[in-house]
Amino acid sequence: MKETWVYSFAEGDGKNKKLLGGKGANLCELTQTGIRVPPGFVITTKACLAFLNNPERKIPQGMMEQVSKHLKKIEGLTNKSFGGEKKPLLLSVRSGSAMSMPGMMDTILNLGLNPDTLKGLIADTGNERFCYDAYRRFIQLFGKVALGIPDELFDEEFEKIKSKAHAHLDVDLSRDDLAEICTVFLQVVERYTGKPFPHDPFEQLEIAIKAVFSSWMGKRAVDYRREFKITSEMANGTAVNIVAMVFGNMSNNSATGVGFTRDPGTGENVIFGEYLVNAQGEDVVAGIRTPKPLAAMADEMPGLFKELMELRNNLESHFKEVQDFEFTIEEGILYCLQTRNGKMNATAMVRTSVEMKKEGLIDTKQALLRIKPEMLEQLLFPRLDPDADATPVAKGLPASPGGASGIAVFDADRAEKLGHEGVKVILVREETKPEDIHGFFAAQGILTSRGGKTSHAAVVARGMGKPCVAGAEGITVDVRLRQAVIGDTLISEGDTITIDGSTGGVYLGELPLIEAEFTPELEKLLSWADEKARLKVMANADTPGDAKRALKFGAMGIGLCRTERMFNEPSRLPIVIEMIIADTKEDRQKALDKLLPIQREDFKNIFIEMAPRPVTIRLLDPPIHEFLPQEQQLIEELELLRNLRKNLRGMRKLSEAVTFMYQNEPEKPIVQLSADPELLDAVILKKDMILSKVRSLHEINPMLGHRGVRLGLTFPEIYAMQIRAILEAAAECKKSGVTVHPEIMIPQVCTAQELKRVKEWVIQIHAEVEDRFGLSIQCAFGSMLEVVRACMRAENLAEEAEFFSFGTNDLTQATFSFSREDAENKFLPMYNMSHILQDNPFEVLDVKGVGKLMELAVRWGRQTRPDIKVGICGEHGGHPASIEFCHKIGLTYVSCSGPRVPIARLAAAHAAINQP
Amino acid sequence: MKETWVYSFAEGDGKNKKLLGGKGANLCELTQTGIRVPPGFVITTKACLAFLNNPERKIPQGMMEQVSKHLKKIEGLTNKSFGGEKKPLLLSVRSGSAMSMPGMMDTILNLGLNPDTLKGLIADTGNERFCYDAYRRFIQLFGKVALGIPDELFDEEFEKIKSKAHAHLDVDLSRDDLAEICTVFLQVVERYTGKPFPHDPFEQLEIAIKAVFSSWMGKRAVDYRREFKITSEMANGTAVNIVAMVFGNMSNNSATGVGFTRDPGTGENVIFGEYLVNAQGEDVVAGIRTPKPLAAMADEMPGLFKELMELRNNLESHFKEVQDFEFTIEEGILYCLQTRNGKMNATAMVRTSVEMKKEGLIDTKQALLRIKPEMLEQLLFPRLDPDADATPVAKGLPASPGGASGIAVFDADRAEKLGHEGVKVILVREETKPEDIHGFFAAQGILTSRGGKTSHAAVVARGMGKPCVAGAEGITVDVRLRQAVIGDTLISEGDTITIDGSTGGVYLGELPLIEAEFTPELEKLLSWADEKARLKVMANADTPGDAKRALKFGAMGIGLCRTERMFNEPSRLPIVIEMIIADTKEDRQKALDKLLPIQREDFKNIFIEMAPRPVTIRLLDPPIHEFLPQEQQLIEELELLRNLRKNLRGMRKLSEAVTFMYQNEPEKPIVQLSADPELLDAVILKKDMILSKVRSLHEINPMLGHRGVRLGLTFPEIYAMQIRAILEAAAECKKSGVTVHPEIMIPQVCTAQELKRVKEWVIQIHAEVEDRFGLSIQCAFGSMLEVVRACMRAENLAEEAEFFSFGTNDLTQATFSFSREDAENKFLPMYNMSHILQDNPFEVLDVKGVGKLMELAVRWGRQTRPDIKVGICGEHGGHPASIEFCHKIGLTYVSCSGPRVPIARLAAAHAAINQP
Repeated sequence: MKETWVYSFAEGDGKNKKLLGGKGANLCELTQTGIRVPPGFVITTKACLAFLNNPERKIPQGMMEQVSKHLKKIEGLTNKSFGGEKKPLLLSVRSGSAMSMPGMMDTILNLGLNPDTLKGLIADTGNERFCYDAYRRFIQLFGKVALGIPDELFDEEFEKIKSKAHAHLDVDLSRDDLAEICTVFLQVVERYTGKPFPHDPFEQLEIAIKAVFSSWMGKRAVDYRREFKITSEMANGTAVNIVAMVFGNMSNNSATGVGFTRDPGTGENVIFGEYLVNAQGEDVVAGIRTPKPLAAMADEMPGLFKELMELRNNLESHFKEVQDFEFTIEEGILYCLQTRNGKMNATAMVRTSVEMKKEGLIDTKQALLRIKPEMLEQLLFPRLDPDADATPVAKGLPASPGGASGIAVFDADRAEKLGHEGVKVILVREETKPEDIHGFFAAQGILTSRGGKTSHAAVVARGMGKPCVAGAEGITVDVRLRQAVIGDTLISEGDTITIDGSTGGVYLGELPLIEAEFTPELEKLLSWADEKARLKVMANADTPGDAKRALKFGAMGIGLCRTERMFNEPSRLPIVIEMIIADTKEDRQKALDKLLPIQREDFKNIFIEMAPRPVTIRLLDPPIHEFLPQEQQLIEELELLRNLRKNLRGMRKLSEAVTFMYQNEPEKPIVQLSADPELLDAVILKKDMILSKVRSLHEINPMLGHRGVRLGLTFPEIYAMQIRAILEAAAECKKSGVTVHPEIMIPQVCTAQELKRVKEWVIQIHAEVEDRFGLSIQCAFGSMLEVVRACMRAENLAEEAEFFSFGTNDLTQATFSFSREDAENKFLPMYNMSHILQDNPFEVLDVKGVGKLMELAVRWGRQTRPDIKVGICGEHGGHPASIEFCHKIGLTYVSCSGPRVPIARLAAAHAAINQP
Repeated sequence: MKETWVYSFAEGDGKNKKLLGGKGANLCELTQTGIRVPPGFVITTKACLAFLNNPERKIPQGMMEQVSKHLKKIEGLTNKSFGGEKKPLLLSVRSGSAMSMPGMMDTILNLGLNPDTLKGLIADTGNERFCYDAYRRFIQLFGKVALGIPDELFDEEFEKIKSKAHAHLDVDLSRDDLAEICTVFLQVVERYTGKPFPHDPFEQLEIAIKAVFSSWMGKRAVDYRREFKITSEMANGTAVNIVAMVFGNMSNNSATGVGFTRDPGTGENVIFGEYLVNAQGEDVVAGIRTPKPLAAMADEMPGLFKELMELRNNLESHFKEVQDFEFTIEEGILYCLQTRNGKMNATAMVRTSVEMKKEGLIDTKQALLRIKPEMLEQLLFPRLDPDADATPVAKGLPASPGGASGIAVFDADRAEKLGHEGVKVILVREETKPEDIHGFFAAQGILTSRGGKTSHAAVVARGMGKPCVAGAEGITVDVRLRQAVIGDTLISEGDTITIDGSTGGVYLGELPLIEAEFTPELEKLLSWADEKARLKVMANADTPGDAKRALKFGAMGIGLCRTERMFNEPSRLPIVIEMIIADTKEDRQKALDKLLPIQREDFKNIFIEMAPRPVTIRLLDPPIHEFLPQEQQLIEELELLRNLRKNLRGMRKLSEAVTFMYQNEPEKPIVQLSADPELLDAVILKKDMILSKVRSLHEINPMLGHRGVRLGLTFPEIYAMQIRAILEAAAECKKSGVTVHPEIMIPQVCTAQELKRVKEWVIQIHAEVEDRFGLSIQCAFGSMLEVVRACMRAENLAEEAEFFSFGTNDLTQATFSFSREDAENKFLPMYNMSHILQDNPFEVLDVKGVGKLMELAVRWGRQTRPDIKVGICGEHGGHPASIEFCHKIGLTYVSCSGPRVPIARLAAAHAAINQP
């Protein structure tokens, strides 16, 4: 059977994006839907792969014949002739792969022009200036894309003639200027390639197709695929779309524009976009001329605007998704050149989801699935505090919402370098091009002095959810000097600036940012998510304030309440230190007796805040030396105090001592102590005790040290105090009518015996508290699974534990034998960069290793206790891919930081919809 | 059905030790074999449990009736009557559980005596002195064991009368003295208990049985079972053996003794033991009188000696095991009182195994199985260097071989305390008693001033394989003053002494110890083991010297050659430091170029030593900061050097500088440097560089840090150098005709990608070296499994690795999240003590957690590569129970330290025999 390499838009399968690419499939679909598209055809991605896999990079057998056949059809439809001296057919040649990769692939316009067809075009259009303009554009684009000639060579010549002609804008150039440019450009090509420019349109076409094919393996495309993790499963090779040219720059009754069917910044259901009269599409996208908003068309071209609105409605009803489309008006006829799903920020995605569902365009599942959970992160991103009352030094277009501060950096390479070093940068450019993409990844935000809301910078920044101010024309960017000038103000590389992508403001220095509020649409969307999800979403929260915030984010309870943060509060730390340095059980008990009412109050307030949702409290986990000062600090303090004491000897009067101190330590006065040698002695004694405790508690590997339940079993009175505080708090709540569901969770467990011991204490204190308060308290008892052995012994642990919670931070460290702090500083970046590990396992759950262990632990645990509640409370609990995995292995809940709760809720819904 | 609680020796099942206890079953077996045993019966362990489980501790229904019935039978057999005024029958009542627990349980002799039966006994024997002696022994034993009266109360009275009678030894006491003692003893009992001594023999019997039953739950018994890990599966409850008394102290034609059928110290096939004429058994065991060797009996009682030799032969042919038996001669008639398998030291076990096999008594499997592999440790224990030429300050009996040094400690509690603190102690006692057992566990060796080779101290020490010198009569021990006096020499607590359990020598101070040599018997035994074993036994060896020693121990190759020890040698360390502080790849390469020939030479010498056995070399593992000095040390050195430099300024002459130095730092002269300020500056500069490197390399958790393959991938040139050194060494060996099998092993692997990268280097360097030398080299490539994730991903790792080696030290740390150094100092002893963990998982492989992970890894790895070689090279590789587990999960080899190789070989044979 003969392979079909080419499909016309009228016959191609609009669903087969893998074969035809997104753009090609869309054009087929559009054509077949009855939307006016210039006639054309698409060469398949299979042809591209056949070409790339051919060692000599030859076009596959028979393909060019099929191309010729389809060209004939276009000639028929347009009544034009390819290479004809009369009514010449011109073509656009565009790439298009299965995944949208904006600006990544190369495009050639006006293909088919040569001195002969130029004459035909002049004859045909009667517009010589337009024709030479089209020709010079073609020569440059073809030269650059297909022949690899640097743009600068053309630009230099262009600028020379422009300045000779005293032209300020391109449109100021005359027919003769443009004709001269064509001549010079043809010379540039011949000089660079050593061969004359190919005039044969068929030769041009073949060269162009090969260039598009090859661009699939170009550096930019490969980088983009790697960065966005686009596998060959998702997209393999690019199709080539060959379309009859239509011209938006043929006259003032011609125009070109790009549009979104809804506002991609806010999601509002109004058409959004820009157009330029008498211009070609690239003029809009490249931001060289500043275009008008589409709304202006209603006045300027009212009939065509009506047609445009019809197009918009047709597109949405057909694709059931916000569309990002291009159109051209050639002499009053509106063509849709391409369409694709619109890239929007999270606000817009959420709003359009909710509204399109309400309009009946999509159903709940679709409304949920079209939003990537990670996207919601944007909504939880900070924005500029409106009360900051700062005056912008410049204003641009609000191209991608949100606020960002960072140092100004003027090229993408430096932005990337500094960004990787952890420096916050704002990428400042005159305009951006696809080759700047790596700078976007590293920047906090983007600022350009040219281009509109659909310029490259704006589109890419919105896609990434990064703030962008575009077209801030008051700014003059000088890349060479690494500076930007705004009136009298000079911004040099390294100066901190702030941009507000929601208003277009540019500010000097760093401005305060505030958190975003939940929109009603987001609330609605997440309520749908909760209906679909099977996983519950809990929050990690350590204080009543955390709990309150978590509730606002929709947490269904607290999955992890760390008690150590309570210990660390400045007012309590001295008591904790007292407890630690105690030499006897009695002294330790004294300190614990002081801590008990404090902890009880903490728990009570959290319980009240969360009532009646469950609150899982983890007993003390970190090694106790973490509560003590650093050894070096103590040594220095002691030296200072001892010197002071030495000099104090003999001094009698307060004033004398204080004077001495200020003389000797002007910056570190220890006023109270100085007056009283006895008090000073006592302080020295105490600090000495703390120092020797710090030394005796020193551990070689604190991550694997004396912590968690090991500590709890060594000093039973600490855990006993915490258990008592929890149960008494619960009892007091219950007494005052508040329903509470406390859960006690034991950290660092490695054997069921540990649980058994602590459980005995819980049972005993539980009975005692119930007895004293004369009421019954529900309190679950469970175990962290953060030690590998705990996972291996899950079936035994489940005999004691009523619930499990995977602590995937520690579990990942133990499974990899990576100390997180050391790894991320030392070798992990290299591991990721060289693809030894695809991800940072502390950010993305390592499904193959840690996940496999978790899956086994769940299975083993449920062998003993089939209904055991199992959750996760590591950072991974808020990571969508990890949540999907948690759903898959049958966890009951995930717990994550408050601001990630919405992301987790949506991810949980996705997981449930995708794996019912 | 009526429960049978009691069996006569003629009817009990000699194989059913669980029901009848070891002693009881033996007595049944002896009786039924035709060996002359005093008539008696045994009360079952079931009766004991029924008694203990009864809340009121009542003797089970019907048991005493059965006892009476059996008593009647004994009366018939002995023609004596229990409680009779004529020919009274006296009984011994002894405990005996399924497991031998020497001295742990209580025994009562001469039961049945009272004023009436005493008269009958006198009439019967005509020996009043003997009868009163028997009576006073009975009262004391019964008082102590059955009524709980402290021995001291009796001893005080005894000593009073003894001194009043001017008696030096017990035998110096007259009939009247003994009669007086009886009267006083009866008063002691009445005073202590508030009741008269029970005179009714049946009441005596019932009380005695209850006391034996209860002793099963006594502290000593419970401690012993815990220490030796005797579970209720192995022994549950004690039986009670009730036997007609025979008297070795009835006359000078009576005697009592204990014997081993072979010498338990050397294994030599000669009878071994001691006897006392006119004495009761306890006199021999307690070491109160120093007995004569059995050989002396040939002269003293030639007829009976012949009978004894017959008994010995009968015992061995019946039990097919060396027997430890007790006998009594009553008026010329030889009775065997009990027998059990003899506890012997390793030398004796090995020799008897080999000889009994040769004699045809046992087969090879039996010869192997009767020796616990751990036991061989004794043979690998150090002994005193015979060339040390030290003069003993005292001489005792060589009671348990081997040499030991430590500080003298005079009671078991202090020995235990100090031992647990890591202090080496020698327990010095007049004589030891069962209640001293905890001191034995903690001591390096035991020294007593009284008792023979079968005294408590000797028996227990031999069982534990600890050196013991017994009955060193020249020493006067004073527990109260915590000192011992030997002539003019005073040994106070804390003084270091050395004992030689092979010669009986006692020395002041610490003497040099040397390793034991392999005996031909051990060689033979291990050759049998190798035939039976399936697991290969490799050694961990880092140097040619190690390799030589490992070969001597029978290693079949090197399973782990750690390259870091080579790095650490003083002559090389400066080059290693140079490599570490290098800032550029080039500087690092320069240092590596110096290391290459050194490493190559190391490997070559190891290969030659081990040829043609395989040598597995692990590439560099530890974090590189381990090769640098400590931060604090550097700071101090720098301060010193800087001070020196400051003071040197202005000095011109060498003499001046040196003088200054000696004045200021008399103890730390830095002679070479002092003369040359420039050199001094250079040294300061270098040390500063090292210091800043030390700081930049600091890690929070070095165990989980930048080490192993992570380091190798960060600095590829280090691994490349090592790989080159290995392959060039192999090539040079091959060139000179030596067959070598190098294997390259990668540490700390967590993903197959890591292996893949290093493997590429190996392949490249391999090809290059083969090419240069013009020959082919075999070299296997494998991975450590010491990271949990490596185990989880074993099926992927097996795609790259030709062999795996479990690093169970690190794997245990990661699985438990225990840092070994921290855990063993901080909480692990508490975990073991309170049975949260049964064992220290760094000593005994944690089968349930780490082992489960290993088992899964082996299974997964073999899914990819069914024939993959899998070994273990952690410390567990030399631990018998762990080796058994390794056999069970199908490992190919174990690798352990050289001296543990013989243990591993025997353990591997055991595993193969037990799990064919």
